[in-house]
Amino acid sequence: MRLPEAWIISVGNELLNGRIVNTNLSWLARRLTIDGYLVRAALTVRDECDDIAWAFRTALERGADLILSTGGLGPTFDDKTSECLSRALGRRHVVNEEALRMVEEKYREKGLPLTEHRVKMAMMPEGAEPIPNDVGTAPGILVREGDSLIVVMPGVPAEMKAIFERVEPLLRDRAPPLHYVSKDLVVRGVPESAAAPLIERVMKEYPVYVKSHPQGHEMRKPILRINVIYSSTDEAEAIRVVDEALKKLKDLLVELGGEVEGIEDAGQG
Amino acid sequence: MRLPEAWIISVGNELLNGRIVNTNLSWLARRLTIDGYLVRAALTVRDECDDIAWAFRTALERGADLILSTGGLGPTFDDKTSECLSRALGRRHVVNEEALRMVEEKYREKGLPLTEHRVKMAMMPEGAEPIPNDVGTAPGILVREGDSLIVVMPGVPAEMKAIFERVEPLLRDRAPPLHYVSKDLVVRGVPESAAAPLIERVMKEYPVYVKSHPQGHEMRKPILRINVIYSSTDEAEAIRVVDEALKKLKDLLVELGGEVEGIEDAGQG
Repeated sequence: MRLPEAWIISVGNELLNGRIVNTNLSWLARRLTIDGYLVRAALTVRDECDDIAWAFRTALERGADLILSTGGLGPTFDDKTSECLSRALGRRHVVNEEALRMVEEKYREKGLPLTEHRVKMAMMPEGAEPIPNDVGTAPGILVREGDSLIVVMPGVPAEMKAIFERVEPLLRDRAPPLHYVSKDLVVRGVPESAAAPLIERVMKEYPVYVKSHPQGHEMRKPILRINVIYSSTDEAEAIRVVDEALKKLKDLLVELGGEVEGIEDAGQG
Repeated sequence: MRLPEAWIISVGNELLNGRIVNTNLSWLARRLTIDGYLVRAALTVRDECDDIAWAFRTALERGADLILSTGGLGPTFDDKTSECLSRALGRRHVVNEEALRMVEEKYREKGLPLTEHRVKMAMMPEGAEPIPNDVGTAPGILVREGDSLIVVMPGVPAEMKAIFERVEPLLRDRAPPLHYVSKDLVVRGVPESAAAPLIERVMKEYPVYVKSHPQGHEMRKPILRINVIYSSTDEAEAIRVVDEALKKLKDLLVELGGEVEGIEDAGQG
């Protein structure tokens, strides 16, 4: 089954000078995977319009069905994502009346006026829809471009999550209904290079995705965590396939002298 | 001053299904920034040749002076970075004799033969140079392409760091002359695990790189040597930033009951 493909764009100098670890990316990637998307790629760019516009154009040109961006969506001068998205799409950058009402209401509650910096948070590509921000002030932005969907979110994790959850039902509607099963097996005493042909054999026999994560030292004290993933429209089938592949893998590893510690549910994703 | 521009490519499905947070990216971004590079963008791609080759070509086409990649450099079928880099560069993918000797030696020490999967770790784009891997088995790869430098590293953080530190002097030679300030603080009575959140806090507040080296026993008699690094074209600024970060760190450690022995110049960081 062809899954719809998502690209994730992360905007912010702090991600490219190492001040911040990008936990938004892994959070979104996991949620999208569970929601039935294949996350094709992630682009991290600086707070510069050329780079931001390039990232959106690149994702569109390479066939993204869905583009999610985080960062650069606030009141300050270096929050440029919305404006640069307008430029990337060749659309006018305009005040969105619905967004303006959302922003105005946030400040009215506090007895604060709408300043130029606050109005800026209501400016969007022409034709966009604002997504309510239940945690912060800047609304998210939803844009339909051809058959693709673009969702622009702030970089503050709590705001990003709140806005993502607002649009998640729409994203799920656009993906096939899938059940995703992911289980881990931990084995001691088998170096990754020796496990590699066994993993290949299991992947030939079963339609699962298998990935090994070395956690000890390859030569002295090898510990491998091996993750087996499968998803299906049929939940019972997804569980059965993963369990059968794991059993086969376990048998092969034990034959090689490995000590299999146990099998853990790796959660949804 | 125009800084040389670096692109970072991260390879691995686990980064795009949310199983792993990409701490390699922030570590490399910080080190490159201190070494005098502007990190222009980061691309995260799946373990698929089209995507990996696209990432390298894109970074080269957009003028990267330096490309660092992590991931996809091991013995298993889905470790494809080296092969796909060869394809991106239009070079033959060949066994590098020097790399083969490195790999062979690792396995010979253990009395293990060179299997097909192990020889795979010595295959590189024609003209590449292997970088010794002091921690794991797969050597890193250094490729000169026009005026650009490409460094390919494994995804396991300890191996990535060991290989990066092997090539770091070369990277610094290609960056503008910066003043590096590197100072050590020695503290008794604070276990590394208790110092970790304080170090994180200082790294959030100041643009420095901080590394702790435990020298005593973690629980009974903890002694930590903590190294703080920063660089700038302006020597006075570099000294000021390191001194401020050290003062903050010292205050936090003393608050926690630590006995700070003194601050020493650690030389060219």
